[in-house]
Amino acid sequence: MTQVLFSAIDHQMMSLAIHLAKQGIYTTSPNPNVGCVIVHDGNVVGKGAHLKAGEPHAEVHALRQAGELSEGSTAYVTLEPCSHYGRTPPCAEALIKAKIRRVVCAMQDPNPQVAGRGIQMLREAGIQVDVGLLEQDAWQLNPGFIKWMQTGMPFVQLKLAASVDGKTALSNGQSQWITGAKARQDVQHYRAKAGAILSTAKTVLDDNASLNVRWDDLPQSVQAIYDINHVRQPVRVILNRRGDLLKKPTNELKLFNTDGERLLVHPKQGSIYDMETKAASNKVVDTQVIEAELNDDQFDLPFLFKQLAKDQNINHIWVEAGATLAASLIKQDLVDELIIYIAPKLMGTDGRGLTQIMGLTSMKEAIDLDITDLRMVGADIRLTAKIVKK
Amino acid sequence: MTQVLFSAIDHQMMSLAIHLAKQGIYTTSPNPNVGCVIVHDGNVVGKGAHLKAGEPHAEVHALRQAGELSEGSTAYVTLEPCSHYGRTPPCAEALIKAKIRRVVCAMQDPNPQVAGRGIQMLREAGIQVDVGLLEQDAWQLNPGFIKWMQTGMPFVQLKLAASVDGKTALSNGQSQWITGAKARQDVQHYRAKAGAILSTAKTVLDDNASLNVRWDDLPQSVQAIYDINHVRQPVRVILNRRGDLLKKPTNELKLFNTDGERLLVHPKQGSIYDMETKAASNKVVDTQVIEAELNDDQFDLPFLFKQLAKDQNINHIWVEAGATLAASLIKQDLVDELIIYIAPKLMGTDGRGLTQIMGLTSMKEAIDLDITDLRMVGADIRLTAKIVKK
Repeated sequence: MTQVLFSAIDHQMMSLAIHLAKQGIYTTSPNPNVGCVIVHDGNVVGKGAHLKAGEPHAEVHALRQAGELSEGSTAYVTLEPCSHYGRTPPCAEALIKAKIRRVVCAMQDPNPQVAGRGIQMLREAGIQVDVGLLEQDAWQLNPGFIKWMQTGMPFVQLKLAASVDGKTALSNGQSQWITGAKARQDVQHYRAKAGAILSTAKTVLDDNASLNVRWDDLPQSVQAIYDINHVRQPVRVILNRRGDLLKKPTNELKLFNTDGERLLVHPKQGSIYDMETKAASNKVVDTQVIEAELNDDQFDLPFLFKQLAKDQNINHIWVEAGATLAASLIKQDLVDELIIYIAPKLMGTDGRGLTQIMGLTSMKEAIDLDITDLRMVGADIRLTAKIVKK
Repeated sequence: MTQVLFSAIDHQMMSLAIHLAKQGIYTTSPNPNVGCVIVHDGNVVGKGAHLKAGEPHAEVHALRQAGELSEGSTAYVTLEPCSHYGRTPPCAEALIKAKIRRVVCAMQDPNPQVAGRGIQMLREAGIQVDVGLLEQDAWQLNPGFIKWMQTGMPFVQLKLAASVDGKTALSNGQSQWITGAKARQDVQHYRAKAGAILSTAKTVLDDNASLNVRWDDLPQSVQAIYDINHVRQPVRVILNRRGDLLKKPTNELKLFNTDGERLLVHPKQGSIYDMETKAASNKVVDTQVIEAELNDDQFDLPFLFKQLAKDQNINHIWVEAGATLAASLIKQDLVDELIIYIAPKLMGTDGRGLTQIMGLTSMKEAIDLDITDLRMVGADIRLTAKIVKK
């Protein structure tokens, strides 16, 4: 491929397309976020974003708005236009029909099976196609969709929260509240972006956690682009290895009394809870039970994640649980991104630790993080990090 | 006092004076950092900073540079000009002699015994004096000097360093290195600003710590304003309650083989180490022994700090020690500022804790911090905080 030199106008228009794409970050799951801008003689004549699976793609919205002005225009799209008939006809075809002159894509389709086909279809129709403008930014719109397409696995974000001295609770278990209201709002925004929220029976029981998206608690900046009427509840996937979750009446648990689907994960082999309880759970509305393999008496998490991606179309998992699941995920290299809230407190050296990681004997064994973002969220610190592969 | 409206020029010139004052932050201890700018007909005609105790004050440097142009000029000074004869004649007198027309001070003298006297002397000579411009910035130049003058106690900064999960070492004691090279350089810059570095025999022995200022290791930004020929070594104050420090030959310890004074603190009552060892320590060059009261078998730290301020003119202490001293200082409310480095690592929940604070039974007992600064220093996080009084 030859090196394309993009103009300042190209950059400006692709930035706008990326901005538009973000309108859908709380609603398109499992579809990708895509934005499109159509420019005719230097003027923006069409703008579009994909907002929900099954609804029109970004290009279609933009072309409709541009109407006859599409002819001879340049289309800026954050993702390669699709070339296949899905729930909607291929966008590449729509761009050709509208007589677009040039298409600028931020990135190719991440699905290796179809990458480049849309571009090829456009080029064969005589359209100039330039690829790779603001690719990093476009990538960040869809970490889940991209990882899913490339590996069959979901993108996993692990939330942790502790005091400056690394504690999640006092030695007697008290922990409310470590972080402040702004940080808890911020968590709502991460939940809202995910396809699923993963937790454990222990967390649900200990905290009577609802693990849903509460629109009222979202930051105002999110409310501004995410209408209360369009709230999408991520599936709550709860690891229920010992069946503890169903020993308590469901009407006493917020998990079962809040909007949104539940997916309880039970062990496949040698069921350790009675089947009547299991049956009962199936009767709870919007609650599904799936069975997953055990490995050394623990859920086989890589297998489970693949299963969730394949069977449930879950490509982005937000994990909120305790120190044990955190350690398992980290040790098995299943975490794509850590979101760590550090509260401005010292809770004492006998408090409960951030993860159940233990027994390191050399500093070389320490888990190294690469901090990609650091900021204050209210009075708390939020750091975003990736785990450095060794 | 009537409300003074300062002009944009006033702000600009006082900012310059504060900038000049910073030239001395590594060298003036125990004297304050002061900057002065003299402006004649809108032009800067004199600039000065106080650089070292016993050398001329900022005003004198600036007046010398301005020469005859001082007459009718405005002098911007970051601190109220002194009114007393010390090692140098009073600056208020010098300003009067030079026929300055107006003096703008960022803040009054923090010593309640003399505050306002310099201003009064100037006003009695017919000079217009306006006080309070950029007062907060001026205050931050001299936290040690100001606290000392106002309370008789030194300003105490406690350095802590831990992983994201709050650990200072693995369970086997391994800890090198938790933070990276840039953070260690940054520590050098805090050491260089302090009047004394406080540590314990345990830290000196465990790490063979030198606790001195190594010019070569200072950040380039500091080297640029702090000449290698002017390095001032803060006094190293080492708590040696059980006499352990002197059980090892001094030639094996970096503490005793690096430039700078040492001040060993021994218990006054019921000496628990043999007097011969104590006598030996007095023979080491630049090493002084002082005796301090014990309280419940621990040094009476408030008393010791007052003693250091009174007898040794130490008004700014930088503490680098372990979890035990950190907990004592925090519990006794002796810490003015925490400087906490958080390394991008997870070291395991069985690692060693940040402080020996323990036994909290309610979240209300947690020590709340007020974060005043947050930034990356190389790959590490540095947070600056004050402890919230309850």
